[in-house]
Amino acid sequence: MKKITVKSPANIAFIKYWGQTKLNLYIPRNNNISMTLSNCQTITTIVRDPKLKEDIIEIQKGDKYSPLLKDTHKGKNAYDQINRIRKMSKSKDKVHIRSKNSFPSDAGIASSASGFSALTGALLLAFDQKKIFDDKKEFSKEVRLCGSASAARSIYGGFVELKTGNSHDESYAIQIGDEKHWDLVDIVAIVSQEKKKTSTSQGHAAVDSSPYYKMRLIEMQPRIKTTREAIRKKNIRKLGAATEEDTISLHIVMMTSKPPAYYWEPGTIAVMKSVIDCREQEGLQSYFSIDAGANVHVICEKKDAKEIEKKLKKIPLVKSTIYNEPCEGTHEITKHLF
Amino acid sequence: MKKITVKSPANIAFIKYWGQTKLNLYIPRNNNISMTLSNCQTITTIVRDPKLKEDIIEIQKGDKYSPLLKDTHKGKNAYDQINRIRKMSKSKDKVHIRSKNSFPSDAGIASSASGFSALTGALLLAFDQKKIFDDKKEFSKEVRLCGSASAARSIYGGFVELKTGNSHDESYAIQIGDEKHWDLVDIVAIVSQEKKKTSTSQGHAAVDSSPYYKMRLIEMQPRIKTTREAIRKKNIRKLGAATEEDTISLHIVMMTSKPPAYYWEPGTIAVMKSVIDCREQEGLQSYFSIDAGANVHVICEKKDAKEIEKKLKKIPLVKSTIYNEPCEGTHEITKHLF
Repeated sequence: MKKITVKSPANIAFIKYWGQTKLNLYIPRNNNISMTLSNCQTITTIVRDPKLKEDIIEIQKGDKYSPLLKDTHKGKNAYDQINRIRKMSKSKDKVHIRSKNSFPSDAGIASSASGFSALTGALLLAFDQKKIFDDKKEFSKEVRLCGSASAARSIYGGFVELKTGNSHDESYAIQIGDEKHWDLVDIVAIVSQEKKKTSTSQGHAAVDSSPYYKMRLIEMQPRIKTTREAIRKKNIRKLGAATEEDTISLHIVMMTSKPPAYYWEPGTIAVMKSVIDCREQEGLQSYFSIDAGANVHVICEKKDAKEIEKKLKKIPLVKSTIYNEPCEGTHEITKHLF
Repeated sequence: MKKITVKSPANIAFIKYWGQTKLNLYIPRNNNISMTLSNCQTITTIVRDPKLKEDIIEIQKGDKYSPLLKDTHKGKNAYDQINRIRKMSKSKDKVHIRSKNSFPSDAGIASSASGFSALTGALLLAFDQKKIFDDKKEFSKEVRLCGSASAARSIYGGFVELKTGNSHDESYAIQIGDEKHWDLVDIVAIVSQEKKKTSTSQGHAAVDSSPYYKMRLIEMQPRIKTTREAIRKKNIRKLGAATEEDTISLHIVMMTSKPPAYYWEPGTIAVMKSVIDCREQEGLQSYFSIDAGANVHVICEKKDAKEIEKKLKKIPLVKSTIYNEPCEGTHEITKHLF
C-alpha cells in the first residue's frame, strides 16, 4: 500500500474574508488576499487500505497521535472531505491518515488553512486525482469545499487571492506573486494560547447580525485593489495601511455581531500599540494583522525583521514569536509520518 | 468683592455623542444620555474685580494653583466663555477664578464636563445672570457653548439627556430621573493616566472620515430610546447592553477615522473581559462603558458594587478605582477656594 505525504502552509490574510454566500459551498462573501507562512506547516501522510473497516484520521497532540473525533466541527468536515474525494475515484477503500503541525500546536494560530489544504492534497493524490492536484485552480476549489475556504489560499506559494463568485466554478484561488516575489516577513506575536470563545464558523454565521457588515463589503472594495497592487509593486506602506484597516474593519463586524465576539486580549492591544509606536517614532515599517483570535501577525520587510522581532519579544504580554517568510504552497514530499 | 463658589459633577454617558453639527455652536450630532458622578467634582470660586487688568483662571495642579494658559484648547474655550457671559451683563469687570477637582487629577477622567459646567455656573452668578442659572434649560444651552457639550449634562442631577437639534434653541439638556431615582453605581477602573494621543476635539472633527459614522447615527436611534426607557424602569440589563453597544459603536468610528484613534490600552481589554466574564459566569450585572480614553467605567447596581469593585481591584492592569453614585448637578456652595 503506497504511502503519500503532502506538506502545506498556513497563511495570513492581508484582506480577510468573513461571511459566506451559499453556505454549503463555502464561497467567501469577498475576495481575500494572503501570504503563505514558512514556519506554520502541516504534514499529512495518507494510505489507502482496502482492509480497513473505517477511515482513521490521527492528529498529533503533544508526543503522540490521537484520533480526530467525528463529532467535532473540524472532524465532521475532514471525514466529509474523505467521502467527497473518494467518490470521485469510485473507490470504496478506507484510508488511514496522520497529520502533524510543524509549528507549536495550541499556539492559537489558525491551523485550519494548513490542515485542510494538506488533507485535501493528500486525498486527491491517494484517490488518483493527480490531474486535479496539478491544476491549481481546480485544486483550490476542492479545498474550498472542505469547510475552511481560507485553506484554498494555501495551495499556491507566496501571495494568493481567493475570489468570491456566484457559483462553485467562479470561486477559486489565483497567485499574485510566488514565494520569491517579495522578501516580506510575518512575525506572529503569541499573546494567548487559550481556545477562543467564539469559533470562526460561529462568527461567519453571525455576520448579518452586525449593522456594519454591509458597509464593510462596500468600503473594502478599493482596499482589495490597493492590496493587490501593493503586493505587485512591493509597497510595504500601502500594503500595511490596507492590512491594518482590514483588520479593524473585520473586528468591528465581530464586535457588533449579536452576540458580540471580542477576540482581542490585553496583549493584542499591547502589540498593536507597539507596532504603531515603532513605526511613528522610529520609522520602522511594521503593520499589524489579527485573525479571529487574540494573536497578532506583524508584517514587515526582511531587512527590518530582526529588529522588530527583538522589540516584540520585549513586550511583557508577548509569550513567544514565530518568524515566517513566504513559502511554497501545498506539495508532495517523500518523508512519511508512518 | 463678593465671592461665589459653584460645585459641579462630571458625568458618564451611556449614550455617547461624537461629532457636531454647526461646529461653533457645539450641537451634538445625536441625543446623548448620562449620569452624574458623585466622586468626580469640580469646585470653582469666582470674584469680579474692577481693579484687575486681566482675567485670571487658576487651576489646581498638585498642591498649588497654576494659571490656565490661554493658548491651550481648554484655555481658549474658558477665556472665551468669560467674555461671552460678561457681555450679557454689559460689564467690563475682570474676574479672578480658581478651580479644583475633588477627584484625582491626571487620572485620565474627562474633567471637561465638571470643569466647564462649574465655570459657566460661576460666571452666570458672578455676572448677575441668576435667572439663567436657575432656568436649567437655558443654563444647559450656555454650558454647551463653552466647547464641551457633554458639560451641559452636568447641570442636572442624576440621569440627563442632551438633545441634538437644528439650532441653538433646540439643543439643551433635560432630566430623565434625579439623583435619588435609581441606586446605580459607576466604578471607574483607572488603567492609564497618560495623556491621550488624539484629543476629544480632534476626534469630533474627524468623524466624517469614518466609513462607519453614518451607520452609527442610524443604528443608535433605537438604542437611545431603549436607554431612556431602561433608566425610567430601572432595568440594568437593558441599560447595560445598550451602554456596551454604544461604547463599541463609538470606538468603531474612532478606529476607522483617518487617521485612526486607538484609545484602548491592554488594561481596557482586561477590564472589558473581566466585566463580561463576571456577568456570564457569576451572574453579576456589570457593564462597561469607555469614553474617548483608556479607562473603563463599570456600571452596576449598588447592591453588587462592593463585590464588583473588589474584583476590579484584583486585575493586575487596574491601577485604582473611583466609586460614584448619581449626585446633584451644578449648584452653589458657601465654602470658597480663596
